[in-house]
Amino acid sequence: MGDQRFMPLYGMMKREGLEAIAFVPGANFQRIFGRDFHLMERPLIIIVPADGEPAAIVPALEMASFRPLEFPGPVFDWRDEDGYAAAFDKAATALPQLAGANSFGLEAQRMRAFEQMELQRVFPRARFVDAHGAISSIRLCKTADEIAKLKEAIRISETALEATLGEVREGLTEREVEAILVRQLFAHGAHGLAFEPIVAAGDNSAQPHAQARDDYRIKRGDALLFDFGASYQGYNADITRTFFVGEVSEHDRAFYDTVLAANERGKEATRAGVSANDVDDAVQKVLEGSQFAAFIRHKTGHGLGLDVHEAPQIMRGNHVKLEAGTVFTVEPGLYRQDECGVRIEDDVVVTEDGMECLTTFPRELRIVG
Amino acid sequence: MGDQRFMPLYGMMKREGLEAIAFVPGANFQRIFGRDFHLMERPLIIIVPADGEPAAIVPALEMASFRPLEFPGPVFDWRDEDGYAAAFDKAATALPQLAGANSFGLEAQRMRAFEQMELQRVFPRARFVDAHGAISSIRLCKTADEIAKLKEAIRISETALEATLGEVREGLTEREVEAILVRQLFAHGAHGLAFEPIVAAGDNSAQPHAQARDDYRIKRGDALLFDFGASYQGYNADITRTFFVGEVSEHDRAFYDTVLAANERGKEATRAGVSANDVDDAVQKVLEGSQFAAFIRHKTGHGLGLDVHEAPQIMRGNHVKLEAGTVFTVEPGLYRQDECGVRIEDDVVVTEDGMECLTTFPRELRIVG
Repeated sequence: MGDQRFMPLYGMMKREGLEAIAFVPGANFQRIFGRDFHLMERPLIIIVPADGEPAAIVPALEMASFRPLEFPGPVFDWRDEDGYAAAFDKAATALPQLAGANSFGLEAQRMRAFEQMELQRVFPRARFVDAHGAISSIRLCKTADEIAKLKEAIRISETALEATLGEVREGLTEREVEAILVRQLFAHGAHGLAFEPIVAAGDNSAQPHAQARDDYRIKRGDALLFDFGASYQGYNADITRTFFVGEVSEHDRAFYDTVLAANERGKEATRAGVSANDVDDAVQKVLEGSQFAAFIRHKTGHGLGLDVHEAPQIMRGNHVKLEAGTVFTVEPGLYRQDECGVRIEDDVVVTEDGMECLTTFPRELRIVG
Repeated sequence: MGDQRFMPLYGMMKREGLEAIAFVPGANFQRIFGRDFHLMERPLIIIVPADGEPAAIVPALEMASFRPLEFPGPVFDWRDEDGYAAAFDKAATALPQLAGANSFGLEAQRMRAFEQMELQRVFPRARFVDAHGAISSIRLCKTADEIAKLKEAIRISETALEATLGEVREGLTEREVEAILVRQLFAHGAHGLAFEPIVAAGDNSAQPHAQARDDYRIKRGDALLFDFGASYQGYNADITRTFFVGEVSEHDRAFYDTVLAANERGKEATRAGVSANDVDDAVQKVLEGSQFAAFIRHKTGHGLGLDVHEAPQIMRGNHVKLEAGTVFTVEPGLYRQDECGVRIEDDVVVTEDGMECLTTFPRELRIVG
């Protein structure tokens, strides 16, 4: 109970009326313990009751790494040869106060169904609820240390993008450009990739989640969209810039400038106390009021930190008020199917009187190649 | 019902007595549809009843990519603004035969708890079971095309390892060596990383899932362990080699040779019809019969393909018989905590009369740096 690391969880559980929570390796685990484990086929689960000691279920293979965490409660380890059922049984026995828990919150977007099934088996009378958002809310406001790590991830990403553009030329495939980008990311200090980069040219740029092709060579007049990020000490950059190869038509320039105006409007609309709904509304109104309203496909953005996609969702209908220290993406896009897509994505941190834009890569239309 | 892509699933469901299955993007999805989607906070779920048309729940954002799959049943798309609950409701209405399903199999090591909760909400009387292994069994025997892709992932990985060793020298940090390895992987054609590579020297090599350190410089006499793999067209290599920097003590040489003998014994014990238990038993007996028996920490290996860790688990107690075409890792290791770890991992495909070792990087003790 006295473990400082769990204090934000206890406050959250009280606010949310949760009798217990369970979480697994990932962003919340790392924020709480300062290090992370692989989320793999071997369950590693932390159970924290509102009252009483927490308990952990840990693969024996991970015990040497887990022990230094100095977990403040019983740890039930299990070996591959024996399976994990007995460790779940013991955890339930150690937590009798949860047998009939009416509100047992799970980190349900991260925990897998088989882990929930095991919890349900050993707490058959408990009622499980999705507390992913509530648990993740402990990460909503970033510390100065977290902002510094995000800035470093972004610095690496932007340096790598500039270096990549120096190598882009007509005739390369999307895959080849992606490989250049990844090499530049690691050459400039990336610890990992925030996600598989999107490098999409021509008609492929009109797919918001395009995959790089082996068989398409970028050509003059193509849009060339990069959506990518380095990770650094667990923190993720998420940046999109769209360029044009060799030349740009007047129509595409107007298309681009509409997205750019929406991006700028989203950043202007951001400050502490404003809702996520209002930021998205400001962005969408720019797009909806343009000649390209038919090509809107998605909301403005999402929270960013140890997870690439985390709270808050920056979209209409989400009336949560933005707090100082929250980091999210502003990434309006327009997509003319089979023709051309443009997305311009910045990462911003909310401040009391506005926002600080963490991404600094220029946004003006640029011709490359 | 007539969709050829689902035939292996129908056969599996009949064998397993499942009335329906549900799965999400990932390895099984890719094997069935020939392409994959991101597994993200937006649920994308395929439900396949044993009788009747399948149904899909798909984020509207993904519809342009999903449509080309020519899904053979109703598709319920949903938009961020509306949320996904209505799409689940509609899917349940379209599948009335599953309302009281007694055995509704989920891909439960991949599907997240929140997705299961939604399924349980709309099929309140259905009984869900973990069918991850059953669904994944359709991928157990690899096709010639899959073996070719695995070989390419391995070729890229081994070429990158050799190039990396050419740059290794005393005084580099683990992180710096990891960055070299990643750059070499992408320079040689990797489409992605099978997993975050492990580059561990000295005492860190004794952690089976070590993380590369920024602050430890490799030094003479250290073990230097690489556990890594490229992915290529979705298929993953998984290779471990352990080297020594500058010199090796007689004790460490004996330690290494014990692991090597176990690795060789595991490959000798492999052929169609032998059980996973028997392969692990052969490996463990070598380790247990050595002077280093106290340093055993894990089983022999795991299946490998579109997933880095898939069936079959090569461990005692798993009496499943190996079939020709199954690919798995043979990766015995020994770990003297705070001192030195050695692991030697090959990827093998089972044949009728033995196995083909897909990894070819030399295994003899090698001094580097």
